[in-house]
Amino acid sequence: MTHATDPAAALRRLADRLAPLVAPRTIVTDPDTIAPLLTDWRRRFHGAATLLLAPASVAEVQAIVDIAREERVPLVPQGGNSSMVGGATPPGDGRAAILSLRRLSRLRALDPDAGLAVAEAGVILSDLHAAALAQRRRFPLSLGAKGVATVGGLVSTNAGGTQVLRFGTMRALVAGVEAVLPDGSLYDGLSALKKDNRGYDLDQLLVGAEGTLGVVTAATLRLVPAVAARCAAWVGIASPAAALTLLRRFQRATPALESFELLPAESLGAVLTHIPGTRSPLTGDHPWHVLLEVTADTPDDDPAALVERVLAAAFADGVAADATLAASEAQAKAFWRIRESISDAERATGPAAQHDISVPVEAMPRFMVEAAAACDARFPGTRASGFGHLGDGNVHFHVRAAPCTDPAHWYAEQVPVVSAFVHDLVVAAGGSISAEHGIGQMKRRELERLGPPARLWALRAIKRAFDPDELFNPGKLVTLAPDAPIQ
Amino acid sequence: MTHATDPAAALRRLADRLAPLVAPRTIVTDPDTIAPLLTDWRRRFHGAATLLLAPASVAEVQAIVDIAREERVPLVPQGGNSSMVGGATPPGDGRAAILSLRRLSRLRALDPDAGLAVAEAGVILSDLHAAALAQRRRFPLSLGAKGVATVGGLVSTNAGGTQVLRFGTMRALVAGVEAVLPDGSLYDGLSALKKDNRGYDLDQLLVGAEGTLGVVTAATLRLVPAVAARCAAWVGIASPAAALTLLRRFQRATPALESFELLPAESLGAVLTHIPGTRSPLTGDHPWHVLLEVTADTPDDDPAALVERVLAAAFADGVAADATLAASEAQAKAFWRIRESISDAERATGPAAQHDISVPVEAMPRFMVEAAAACDARFPGTRASGFGHLGDGNVHFHVRAAPCTDPAHWYAEQVPVVSAFVHDLVVAAGGSISAEHGIGQMKRRELERLGPPARLWALRAIKRAFDPDELFNPGKLVTLAPDAPIQ
Repeated sequence: MTHATDPAAALRRLADRLAPLVAPRTIVTDPDTIAPLLTDWRRRFHGAATLLLAPASVAEVQAIVDIAREERVPLVPQGGNSSMVGGATPPGDGRAAILSLRRLSRLRALDPDAGLAVAEAGVILSDLHAAALAQRRRFPLSLGAKGVATVGGLVSTNAGGTQVLRFGTMRALVAGVEAVLPDGSLYDGLSALKKDNRGYDLDQLLVGAEGTLGVVTAATLRLVPAVAARCAAWVGIASPAAALTLLRRFQRATPALESFELLPAESLGAVLTHIPGTRSPLTGDHPWHVLLEVTADTPDDDPAALVERVLAAAFADGVAADATLAASEAQAKAFWRIRESISDAERATGPAAQHDISVPVEAMPRFMVEAAAACDARFPGTRASGFGHLGDGNVHFHVRAAPCTDPAHWYAEQVPVVSAFVHDLVVAAGGSISAEHGIGQMKRRELERLGPPARLWALRAIKRAFDPDELFNPGKLVTLAPDAPIQ
Repeated sequence: MTHATDPAAALRRLADRLAPLVAPRTIVTDPDTIAPLLTDWRRRFHGAATLLLAPASVAEVQAIVDIAREERVPLVPQGGNSSMVGGATPPGDGRAAILSLRRLSRLRALDPDAGLAVAEAGVILSDLHAAALAQRRRFPLSLGAKGVATVGGLVSTNAGGTQVLRFGTMRALVAGVEAVLPDGSLYDGLSALKKDNRGYDLDQLLVGAEGTLGVVTAATLRLVPAVAARCAAWVGIASPAAALTLLRRFQRATPALESFELLPAESLGAVLTHIPGTRSPLTGDHPWHVLLEVTADTPDDDPAALVERVLAAAFADGVAADATLAASEAQAKAFWRIRESISDAERATGPAAQHDISVPVEAMPRFMVEAAAACDARFPGTRASGFGHLGDGNVHFHVRAAPCTDPAHWYAEQVPVVSAFVHDLVVAAGGSISAEHGIGQMKRRELERLGPPARLWALRAIKRAFDPDELFNPGKLVTLAPDAPIQ
C-alpha cells in the first residue's frame, strides 16, 4: 500500500476502491450536493470536501473506515449538521471526506414493555418521538433542532435540552451503542444489559466523543411512559437565589419536575419586542421569570394541584411574587415559545457573544449575578445576562455588544477576549466551558488553555489509543499536537 | 534513576523514599498486619506482599504513585477487601505493594438540598448510609458487605445490589470522581456538574475500572429522599415468564418498584433447611417465588395499596398464584433474610459453581429454564438453578455438584469446565459473563476467551494509554499481553 502525500489522490483512491464494495448512491462527488454540508447551520464555520460518503448499512460504514484508514483519508461524521460548535464541519484544506450517517436511518426495534428502542445513527429525533408516541411511550429528550438532529449526532454530542432536569442528558438515555472503531472492528453494545461489568464502559466513552473515537452507527435508547398530563407555570420572582429555593421545593414535592427555566426581564422584553405574536404571561413587572413544567405519567396524578400547592406556599412566604398556570395546551405552548425564542430575539437586538456554560447548581444564582456584573464592568457598554436551565446548573450566558458596535469587529476582535474572560469566571466557579453543546472546533483552544492538565492528559491518552493518526473528525475536541490549527 | 530488576530492592527503595514524605503510619511492613490483606474474604485467592501503604490524604496517594512509578513497583488498591473475583488480592510473586485506601475515610460534604455527598475512598458503605439518614436522605445502594465495603471499591467495581432496579448501579449514582492518574496528576471531577461536555467522560471511565487506570480517592455521590414507607411482598408464581409479566405490571403501575427478586422452590427449600429461624412466607407450594418491594418517598403515598391492587389483578388472571404482604418491618426483614441467606444455604448443601451473569431482561425467563436444563443434561448428577435480580436481567446461576463429589476435585477440575459451558450459553444469549461482580483475576481468562474482539481491542487500547507498564492492579481485568499468568 502506498500512501501518497497528495490528499486529492488519496480521496480518489478511496472512492475508486469503495466503488465495487458499496451501492452507487453511497459515493457522492457532486459539488452541489456536497455544498450545504460544508457550512454549519449558523454559518460560523466553513470547510471544504470533494467526497461525500453516505452509507446505508453498517457493512458499508465498515468498508469506508477500513479503506479510509489504509488511504489515510480523514473522515468527518455528520448527522443533521446542527452542531453549535462546528463539530460536523470538515477541515478547510479539503483532505477529509464527509461521512454522512443520514441514510443509515432504520428504527430497528421499539419494545414498549422493555422501554427500549434501537435506532440507527440517521434516525431523526422527531421521527423517534413519533414512533415512541405511537406505542404510548416517550423518548424524553427534546431540543430546538429536533426536526434535523439525528440519533448519531445526539449520542456523539451527549445532547441536552429542556428535560434534562428529570431524565438527564443523552448519556443517561443511552443503554448501549453500536460503533465502528478506528481499527474497523464493530463494537456491539446494543444488547442493553442492565448490568454488565466487563471492564471500562465503552458505551459511555463513545457518548459525547464527537466522532473522534469511531463512528456511532446505532444506539439502544431508553423510553419512558407517554405523558398523561402536564402543568406548565410561569412565575415572576425576585432573584436567581429565590428561583433556586423554589426549584428545591418543587424537587422535594415531586420527582416529576421536568423543566425549570430561568430568564431575566430583559430576555422576556427582547422576545416581546422582536417576536411577533408573543405576550407577557404576567401583567406586572418582575426582574426574573421562571418557566416550569410538571408532568404526570398516570391519569391518577394531578400535576396542576401539586403546582398550585407549592406555589401557594411560595407566595405565602415571599419566595415567589406572582404566577400563572397554563390553562390549555395552547397556552403552555405559548409559554414555551417565549423561552425558545430568546436566542432569535437577542440576535435581533444586535451582535452578542454566547456561552453555553455550567457551574454547580448551588453556585448558579450567585454566578449569574456576579459574572454579569463583572462582565459589564470589564467591558463598558456591553450588557451581560444569563438564562436557561437553572436546575441543571446550565445557563446560556450572553454578552451583547455595546450599541453601534461593528459586527465584524465584534466577532473577530472582541468576542475572543470576552469569551476568555467569561470562561475564566466559569473555571473559577468550578464549572465547565461546555455544558451541552460540546467542544467541536469552536472551543478546542479554550479547552487546551483551561484544561485542567489531568483532564487534557487523559483526553489525549484516549485519543492516541483509539486514533493515533487522527483520522476521525480531525481538529475537533482534542488533538494530539497542542495548538494544532483550528482548520 | 536506576531500575533494578530485583523487586525486593525496588520495594525497599519505595519505602525509603516515601519515609520523609508521608506520616510514619502510612508505611507498614509488619507481616501480621499485612497477612489478612493477602487473601480475599472467600479465601479463594492468595497473594504475597511485604509492603502495605495506607495513605490518609490525597497528597500521600500522589507521593506514593509518583515514587512507585519511578521505582516500577506495582500498586494493588484495596478497600474493604470484599471482592468476589479476587480483584483486590495482590500477585503471588510479592513484587507489588498493597495500597489500602481505608484511612482515606473522610466524608467531606453532605448537602441534603442538592442531594449530593462527597465521600473519600475509604468511607464504609454503612457509615455513608447512616450519615445520609441523619439528614433524611438515603444513598440508595446496598449489598451484603455494606459493613466493610468502601466507596472507592464500590466505585471501582461499579457495584450493584438489590436496589438497582430503581436507582441503577454505582455508575448511575456517581456524579463525579477524584482520582490520582498513573502519571501522578490529580483528576478532580468532584464538582458534580449536571452538564459537562468537555470530552470523554473520565468519571464514568474510572467507574468499574477495578483500579487498573489509576486510584480513585473520592467520589461525589447522589442521594435520594429517605424512605417514607415501604411495602414488601412475597409472591408464589408458576414460572419465570409469569414473574416477568408481573414485573412489567408493577413497573407500569409505579416508578418506585425498588426490588424484584426471583427464586426457585429449591433455593427457598435450602434456606428453610439450613438457616435456623427461617420459615416459608406462604403456606402452599410454588415452583417459583418473587420477593418485591415498593417504597414511598412521601408520606402521602400508600405503597401497600398499590401492591395489593396490582396483585389482585394478577390473581384474577392467573399471573400470580398466592402472595402475602409484610405486615411489619420485622416481617419484611424476615423476607429479605431468606433472600440474603440463599448463598449460605446452598453452600451448606455441598460444593457449587457460582456465576454472576446477565442477559437482556426479556430473555431471562427463557434463559433460566433452558440453561438449567442444558447444564443438567451436559453434567449428569449436577443440578443447576438461577436466582436473583430478575428486573436487572441478572441472576446468580449456580451449578451444584453431584452428591458425594470430592470438593477439591470439583473446584480444581470440574468447575472450570462447567463455568466455560455456562459462559458459552450466556454469550449465545447476548449476555455478560460478569453482571455485577466485575472481572478481577477470576474471570480475566474467560473475558479474553469470549469478550468480543472489538471490546478487547478497546479495553487494551485504554489500558495501554493510561498504564503502559501495568503498574496499577496488575493482572486484573485486562492485561496487555494476552494469556498473561493469572498470578
